[in-house]
Amino acid sequence: MRTGADLATLRERKPLVHQITNYVVMNETANATLALGALPVMAHAKEEVEELASVAGALVLNIGTLSQHWIEAMLLAARAANAAGVPVVLDPVGAGATRLRTDTAKRILGEAEIAIVRGNAAEVATLAGREAEIRGVESIGASDSGADLAKAAAAGLGCVVAVTGAVDHVSDGAQVLAIGNGHELLGTVSGTGCMATAITGCFAAVASERPLEAAAEALVVFGVAGEDAAREAKGPGTFHVGLYDALYNLDPATIDARAKVDE
Amino acid sequence: MRTGADLATLRERKPLVHQITNYVVMNETANATLALGALPVMAHAKEEVEELASVAGALVLNIGTLSQHWIEAMLLAARAANAAGVPVVLDPVGAGATRLRTDTAKRILGEAEIAIVRGNAAEVATLAGREAEIRGVESIGASDSGADLAKAAAAGLGCVVAVTGAVDHVSDGAQVLAIGNGHELLGTVSGTGCMATAITGCFAAVASERPLEAAAEALVVFGVAGEDAAREAKGPGTFHVGLYDALYNLDPATIDARAKVDE
Amino acid sequence: MRTGADLATLRERKPLVHQITNYVVMNETANATLALGALPVMAHAKEEVEELASVAGALVLNIGTLSQHWIEAMLLAARAANAAGVPVVLDPVGAGATRLRTDTAKRILGEAEIAIVRGNAAEVATLAGREAEIRGVESIGASDSGADLAKAAAAGLGCVVAVTGAVDHVSDGAQVLAIGNGHELLGTVSGTGCMATAITGCFAAVASERPLEAAAEALVVFGVAGEDAAREAKGPGTFHVGLYDALYNLDPATIDARAKVDE
Repeated sequence: MRTGADLATLRERKPLVHQITNYVVMNETANATLALGALPVMAHAKEEVEELASVAGALVLNIGTLSQHWIEAMLLAARAANAAGVPVVLDPVGAGATRLRTDTAKRILGEAEIAIVRGNAAEVATLAGREAEIRGVESIGASDSGADLAKAAAAGLGCVVAVTGAVDHVSDGAQVLAIGNGHELLGTVSGTGCMATAITGCFAAVASERPLEAAAEALVVFGVAGEDAAREAKGPGTFHVGLYDALYNLDPATIDARAKVDE
Repeated sequence: MRTGADLATLRERKPLVHQITNYVVMNETANATLALGALPVMAHAKEEVEELASVAGALVLNIGTLSQHWIEAMLLAARAANAAGVPVVLDPVGAGATRLRTDTAKRILGEAEIAIVRGNAAEVATLAGREAEIRGVESIGASDSGADLAKAAAAGLGCVVAVTGAVDHVSDGAQVLAIGNGHELLGTVSGTGCMATAITGCFAAVASERPLEAAAEALVVFGVAGEDAAREAKGPGTFHVGLYDALYNLDPATIDARAKVDE
Repeated sequence: MRTGADLATLRERKPLVHQITNYVVMNETANATLALGALPVMAHAKEEVEELASVAGALVLNIGTLSQHWIEAMLLAARAANAAGVPVVLDPVGAGATRLRTDTAKRILGEAEIAIVRGNAAEVATLAGREAEIRGVESIGASDSGADLAKAAAAGLGCVVAVTGAVDHVSDGAQVLAIGNGHELLGTVSGTGCMATAITGCFAAVASERPLEAAAEALVVFGVAGEDAAREAKGPGTFHVGLYDALYNLDPATIDARAKVDE
C-alpha cells in the first residue's frame, strides 16, 4: 500500500469522480470528494450519464434512494464506464432491507463490471448469498466474520469487496486486509458510509490497476480523517463539520505511519 | 408527560423511523433522527415503501417538495403503516401556499389514518378550514390563537395536532398543551420545522398509545436542544451544527426539569 | 452601487425567492437565502411552480441536476415569472460539459426572458459561443478574459451576465464591473457558485430595475461573507458553516466600504 503517494497523486491530478447517488447524501459525498482533492460531478439524467461516465476517473453508484429511471441511468453509466475502462464502485445501500434494493444491486453486479463493492456486513452478506441481520438499512450482523465475509464475497462476486464496521475488511478473494482506523462518531452521522464509498471512487481513479489497495487506502484515509475530526468534536454536528476539515488537511507525508492495516 | 423516560426508551430501542420527506431537508432530518438516538430510513420508491413502512416504528410524511409519484408513494406507505399499526406523522409543508400542497395534505388526511399533524399556524389553519396568512411556505399568522387553532384542528381532523411557533400548542381536541421551549435562531435555519416533525415521529414510535404526549415531548426535546445550541452559536451556521450536538447530548435525567409546559 | 442600502431593504422586505435548483445544493441555497434575510421557497412540481413563481420576488433556475420534467417545470415557472414581471436568474451549471446541459441552458435563454446569468467562465463562454475548457462541471479556462467574456456574453444574450472566478466580472453589454471580494476557500465547498446565484436572486428581488447593480452587489456581499468566514476556518467544513454565520451577521452600514469594485 502507498496511501500517501496515491493521495498526493490524487491531489495533483484532481480526477473527476462521477457519482449517481442518493438524495440524502449528495451534498455530503460531493463535499467529501472535493475536500479530499478530487472533483465531484453529480448527474443522473439518462441523456447525459454516458457522456460524463466515459470521461470520468471513476464512477460511483449508490442505491440509497432509488427510482426506476435512476436504476436505468446507473446501468447506462456503468456500461459506458466499462467501455471506456473507467473503474466502477458500487455502494449497495440497504441490500437485504427491501427486494428492490437487493434486486437492483444484483442487477448492477450482473450487467456491469464492478471494480469495488463497499458495504456493511449485512449488505455484503445479502449479495454474497450468506445470512445477515438487518434493521432498516442498518447492519446488525452477519454470520461470517468480516474477514471471511469480505473474502467469500470477493470470490463470489469476482471483484474487490470492502466490508466496513468497527474494523474494515477488504479482499480481492485471495488476500484480506484489515483496517483499524476510524472512530465511533462515524456511526452518528448519516451518510458516512456513502462518503467512504465516494472516497473509494477517488482512490480507484488514481490506482485503477490496484483495486485492492485503492479500496484499503480509501478506508485508511477516511478512518484517519475520522480520528482527526473526533479530537475536538462535541457531538455528531461538530464531528461532521470537522470531517471535511480533516479530509482537506490530511498530510500525505504522515498518513502511511498512521495507517492501522493488518494483512 | 414523561419526556426523560421516553427519551431513554428511544435510545435503548432505537426505533426505525421511515421518512418520505422533501429533497431540501433529507440529510438534516436523517441526521436529527440519528443524533437523537433513533434510526432513520429514507425511501420513496413505490416498489419498497410498503415493505419499510410496515416494519418501522413510525412513518413520517413531509410534503415539502412534491411530485406525482411521491404522492402515490406516500399514500401506499401510509396505508401499509395503518395496516401494521405503525403511527403516521404528517408535516403539511406549504399547505395553503399552493393548491397542490393543500390538496395533497387533505388527500393524505382523507385516505389514511394520521396520528399526529405537525405544522405552522397557516398550514394547520388551512387544513382546518380557518383563515390564515401565508407568504411562500412561511406562516404569517392565523385568525385563531395557537391554542384555539390546535384544539379546533385536532377536533376537526380527528388526530393530535401540533402547531409550532414562538410557543407551540399541541392538542387532541380536548386537552391543549403549550410548550415554551425553543430559541429564535430555529427560524434562521431551513428545515427546523421538518426536523421537529422527524423527532415527533421518533417519539410516536416509542409512545404510540399516547400521541398527545409524544407530540409534546418531541417539541420539548427539540426546543431544549435549540436552547443548548444557541448558547455558543454565532449565527445560523454554528447554531445548525450545534443542534445535532445538542440532540445527541440531551440528558434524559434533566430534561423533565427543563420542560416549559402549560396545560 | 448601493449594496448596504439594498441589503437593508432586503432584510426589511424579506422577498420570496423561488428556487428550482439541483438536488446537491438545495439545502445550502435555501439556508444561504434565509441567512441573508430573504425567504426561500423550493418547489419543482409542474402543478405548482406557476403559482409560486408569479408571486415571488425573484425566480432562480439552476440546472445542476436535470431530468426532463424538471426542465419543463423550469420553463413553465420562467414564463409565469415573465408574465408577472418577476426577474429570472439562471445558473447554467455544467453548460459545455454535456449536450443536455448546454441545450437546456440555451433553451431557457431562448424561451424565457432572463434578467441575469451567473456562471463560471467555461459555462458562460459555451452559451456565448466562445471557446472554453471544461472538466466535468468545473471551468478550467476560456479564451477571453473575464471582462471581455462578460461583456460579449451580455451583448450576445441580451441580459446581465456575471462571470465568477478569482475576480468576478459583471456586465450588461456596455459597462463591466470587476469585483475582487471573495476567498479561495469558496472553491473547496460544493455549491458555493449555486449560493452566489441564489443571493443574486435575492438582490434581483429588491433591485429588479437595476440588474447590473443587483448582480454586482450580490457578489460583493457573498465575497465579503467568504472573507469573514475564512477568518476562523480550519478547512472547508468550518468555512462552510461560517459562511451562513457571516451572511447573517453582514452589516449594511459597513459593507460598501468593504466592496472591492472596479468599473
